[in-house]
Amino acid sequence: MYLSGKAQKLIPYKAGEQPNEEFIKLNTNENPYPPPPKLKEELISASQNLQLYPKPNADLLRSAIAKHHHLKEENVFCANGSDEALALCYLAFFDDEVTTYDVSYSFYPVWAGLFSNTLKQIPLLEDFYPNVLAMKGHKNVLIANPNAPTGIALKEEDLEEIIASTKGACVIDEAYIDFGGVSAVKFIPKYKNLVVVRTMSKYNSLAGMRIGYVMGDAGLIAGLNTVKDSFNSYPLDTLAQRAGVFAIENDVYFMQNAKQIISTRQYTINALNGMGIEVLPSSTNFIFAKFDNAKEVFSKLYAKKILVRHFEMPRISDFLRITIGTRQQMEIFTEGIKEICK
Amino acid sequence: MYLSGKAQKLIPYKAGEQPNEEFIKLNTNENPYPPPPKLKEELISASQNLQLYPKPNADLLRSAIAKHHHLKEENVFCANGSDEALALCYLAFFDDEVTTYDVSYSFYPVWAGLFSNTLKQIPLLEDFYPNVLAMKGHKNVLIANPNAPTGIALKEEDLEEIIASTKGACVIDEAYIDFGGVSAVKFIPKYKNLVVVRTMSKYNSLAGMRIGYVMGDAGLIAGLNTVKDSFNSYPLDTLAQRAGVFAIENDVYFMQNAKQIISTRQYTINALNGMGIEVLPSSTNFIFAKFDNAKEVFSKLYAKKILVRHFEMPRISDFLRITIGTRQQMEIFTEGIKEICK
Repeated sequence: MYLSGKAQKLIPYKAGEQPNEEFIKLNTNENPYPPPPKLKEELISASQNLQLYPKPNADLLRSAIAKHHHLKEENVFCANGSDEALALCYLAFFDDEVTTYDVSYSFYPVWAGLFSNTLKQIPLLEDFYPNVLAMKGHKNVLIANPNAPTGIALKEEDLEEIIASTKGACVIDEAYIDFGGVSAVKFIPKYKNLVVVRTMSKYNSLAGMRIGYVMGDAGLIAGLNTVKDSFNSYPLDTLAQRAGVFAIENDVYFMQNAKQIISTRQYTINALNGMGIEVLPSSTNFIFAKFDNAKEVFSKLYAKKILVRHFEMPRISDFLRITIGTRQQMEIFTEGIKEICK
Repeated sequence: MYLSGKAQKLIPYKAGEQPNEEFIKLNTNENPYPPPPKLKEELISASQNLQLYPKPNADLLRSAIAKHHHLKEENVFCANGSDEALALCYLAFFDDEVTTYDVSYSFYPVWAGLFSNTLKQIPLLEDFYPNVLAMKGHKNVLIANPNAPTGIALKEEDLEEIIASTKGACVIDEAYIDFGGVSAVKFIPKYKNLVVVRTMSKYNSLAGMRIGYVMGDAGLIAGLNTVKDSFNSYPLDTLAQRAGVFAIENDVYFMQNAKQIISTRQYTINALNGMGIEVLPSSTNFIFAKFDNAKEVFSKLYAKKILVRHFEMPRISDFLRITIGTRQQMEIFTEGIKEICK
């Protein structure tokens, strides 16, 4: 056996299925709306000199993001998706331990395994709202806000209390923040230990382009650059850098889509509630709904060519995570649930 | 200070400059010829559904690469550039120590630092050819063949001796193999410990797209997949995957360019030799040339808007690494050297 001891022991993350057949795809929280058609022209124009390396630090993209969030370029770091950004955060900020919730993004324990960190998992309360008191005063913290797969966002005062009380780095994963909840970006000037991670995969309809970014104090961002330049100097290709700039410049388009998704989310919640199905309060582009036999409902939806996500994990095996698609897709989905659960 | 102990101690890799101004850019071993113009049409067609995640394992690209090299898909792994591929090799194959040359790709010691491996560096011989005897029988081996920045390739029997004698994994970094030297790919069926790493940044004129790949025994490739899925599930974006397939399908175009580069390399070596300048035998798209005051020559070339690479490192500080550009670029370069060294 030629694998390292670590590689033999790792339990990798299992990404949601990317099916080859036609499905109503509500399993990986993609945006149902494509990016603006004009993106194609940008990509053509960006593909003039692909024989040259891209800018290693994605300068123009960092500059666009900084401007958009009223920060400086030195406060922004770009990565090959927010998954890479989060992985590099482990290397840059966590020496030994990091604290998160017991029910959250299932990649967090995987990175802890890869980088030999101890992940302390504080149980969410009975209603899946974070136990803020128990989240305070830890060495390092990594939380998703809004949380996934629950969809629940922290109240602003709770968010600030957690950041302020964390002794080391406090990393807030805001993959879903554009669909609800209060962003921690406003706290960046106040807390030097705060790191905010974003993705262009959800709100910006660019999951296919792998663009993530991190915002925080210049010292923390410099640390991320050191780690990046010790792993892979050029994480974003030339076209991804251009697509990212284009997305920032076309924010109005994405804002309108987000509004539509939030409205469709309410429609879906109402429809499920009308059938007596409990749904957790959602601040994201997905909902987390409780079923008597979630696994069976998953399979029956699958047979109807509707793909959602079921996690065979403690506390949440009765739930399905359902991405909010277009209104038409969610009508088909709720129709399907009506047939399955009648 | 909120950085990890590791991040505070890391000495990152320093990539070659990507200047904003117009230079004759001979510093990062890019191909002087752009990819075929028809690539643009491929990119347009691939950009239909960028709101969806890419295939996590780049299935079509793996399949195209496997076919091209007469291997199976299970023998191929794709990554975000060969730098990411190599970084993941450290995690997948090296428990503690790995052996390489003293003069080689300067990212190797950086990864060893990041992942806490001991890098044993065996001195190259006086003429910069590897000390094959001293490279035999180690636990794990990682070598560039042809080597960089020397440009020297191993003889086939020496290559096989090193692979056969290595007790653990033997990783051969073939970034430059299409410009000379014997590839280790033919040994994959014979040696279960062999891993061959390739990039599309040089031969395939796609440095801007970040595409690397690894070939080896199915068990080793499975180990790389486990590590990849514990770090970042979707390392290649949708457009990079399509560009990679397109590159494999257009091999004749790249082969012709490689022939031209090899011929221009000989022209450049002859011109430098004619001025009494020593050049190491090159099997790559760059040459390594010795100067009385390399650092000064670097600066004088820079002033002439010609960018090459100088490494302030033991044994090689008298050399400049010069990428082979177009014939016209190399005529300007040799003209410049003539003026500087007269």
